[in-house]
Amino acid sequence: MVWQRVSIVGVGLLGGSIGLRLKQAKLAKEVIGIGRNPERLEAALAKGAIDSYLLRDADDWPQKLVGSDLIIVCTPVLEIVPVVEQIVEEIGTDATITDVGSTKSEIMTRLEGHAAELCFVGSHPIAGSEKSGVGSATADLLEGKLVLMTSSPNNAAKHVENVSAFWRSLGAFVQEISAADHDSILATTSHLPHVVASILAGVTPRNWLSMTGTGWADSTRIASGSPIVWRQILEENHGPVLHAIDNFATILGDWSEALRARDFDKIEQLLNVGKKIRDALGNRHSSG
Amino acid sequence: MVWQRVSIVGVGLLGGSIGLRLKQAKLAKEVIGIGRNPERLEAALAKGAIDSYLLRDADDWPQKLVGSDLIIVCTPVLEIVPVVEQIVEEIGTDATITDVGSTKSEIMTRLEGHAAELCFVGSHPIAGSEKSGVGSATADLLEGKLVLMTSSPNNAAKHVENVSAFWRSLGAFVQEISAADHDSILATTSHLPHVVASILAGVTPRNWLSMTGTGWADSTRIASGSPIVWRQILEENHGPVLHAIDNFATILGDWSEALRARDFDKIEQLLNVGKKIRDALGNRHSSG
Repeated sequence: MVWQRVSIVGVGLLGGSIGLRLKQAKLAKEVIGIGRNPERLEAALAKGAIDSYLLRDADDWPQKLVGSDLIIVCTPVLEIVPVVEQIVEEIGTDATITDVGSTKSEIMTRLEGHAAELCFVGSHPIAGSEKSGVGSATADLLEGKLVLMTSSPNNAAKHVENVSAFWRSLGAFVQEISAADHDSILATTSHLPHVVASILAGVTPRNWLSMTGTGWADSTRIASGSPIVWRQILEENHGPVLHAIDNFATILGDWSEALRARDFDKIEQLLNVGKKIRDALGNRHSSG
Repeated sequence: MVWQRVSIVGVGLLGGSIGLRLKQAKLAKEVIGIGRNPERLEAALAKGAIDSYLLRDADDWPQKLVGSDLIIVCTPVLEIVPVVEQIVEEIGTDATITDVGSTKSEIMTRLEGHAAELCFVGSHPIAGSEKSGVGSATADLLEGKLVLMTSSPNNAAKHVENVSAFWRSLGAFVQEISAADHDSILATTSHLPHVVASILAGVTPRNWLSMTGTGWADSTRIASGSPIVWRQILEENHGPVLHAIDNFATILGDWSEALRARDFDKIEQLLNVGKKIRDALGNRHSSG
């Protein structure tokens, strides 16, 4: 399947990587980038991730998406719903619309009962990085990665099929999941690690950095992610994230108690629990 | 300077890497490995990390270290003091003795006033890995790495000079530090990250591992470390580690409170604190 016109709103690491792959593999006749920053859009153009671009500060940009058969919204999460609503208002529900947001429940809930619910299918490619921007984009970013897809009972079937086929054409695997399950799982597998990495980095005095090794570097790597992007993810998913933090804090309390009691058998047992799970993953993910 | 005979007690990742470098760079005429497991010692021999080996289960092994001018103790931390004492009792204080232990205060304190205090200089190469065993050893493991060195006022000067020259000959940088400062800093830069990685891994249900990305993988990588080795590190340094955990828990409490209050300005501020410190490290350490 070849798309006639794919529009990518937000041409950063993910949007740029999608554009690169679509064009290199000739999966789309035309790829349009939409964004706010002309310099970044020019960089995307120069890199070959898009064929042309529209600026979001012009009021009429959603009208210009007429003729797009696929629209991918790659903005920070809080912008996704208003952007999708704006587009559907202007061009209707013919085009398939998806996103790459790290949260799903709020997005799916806010679109409920609106026209957009028909053509919007939620997506979350598990392919992030602490890097950002089209400069870090690569055509194979999605290769072999998992995309979690959240559909609505009101979705027209063709849109769900389109989104699934789209991600698979980029080399990704697609798994359908409810938005609630998605957010609860990702709170533990992605959002909690971000919070923890941020704290670990934050409690380290800068002049001790020379006395850190690869352990500290690995454990804190994601703390370099954009605070604006992550603020929004944590805002959208604050309930499940709080739950995950509480859960973490409980085990941290067990550690504290065991150390205070000098119960090193308990410490070894706790270490074994973590090792068993980490070993089960092995080297499946290379470092970002 | 070329060593006549270097004895390495514990030929794992670090001991093996030291042996490999000593032999490849012809920094020692003879390298002897001492350990408990004949198969691992055979592997070290086959790999060229040692010239011969002694088994630690024979009672007289410390006597056989006569003629060593440098002895490096690469055992788990709780074994370091008894091993050093045993060696000094048998062969005296002529040989320079050092270690690679991740903690320093308890070791330095326990050797105070003993003969060993004269010839033992503490070392901690910041060059660990979640990998272990001579199979992962490489001749350049110490290249460009920092070794923290803790000496005693009772050390004979030649032993301090020997240990410093030794690490520098392997390509490492040496920094002298008090044992108390070492343990307090490492509690935050190394031991706390280990605890946190272990908890992060432990709170993740195994069937959610397919829904983890590189963030989770990086953040939990060190949780694969040996529970026996880490139990001992945390036992030796449990005071400073408790302090670091309390500090971490306080900031985690701030996160919890801000999320509960939906104070996302505060969340962004916390994210910025972590990012600033992490960005200051940059890519200085490659991933383990």
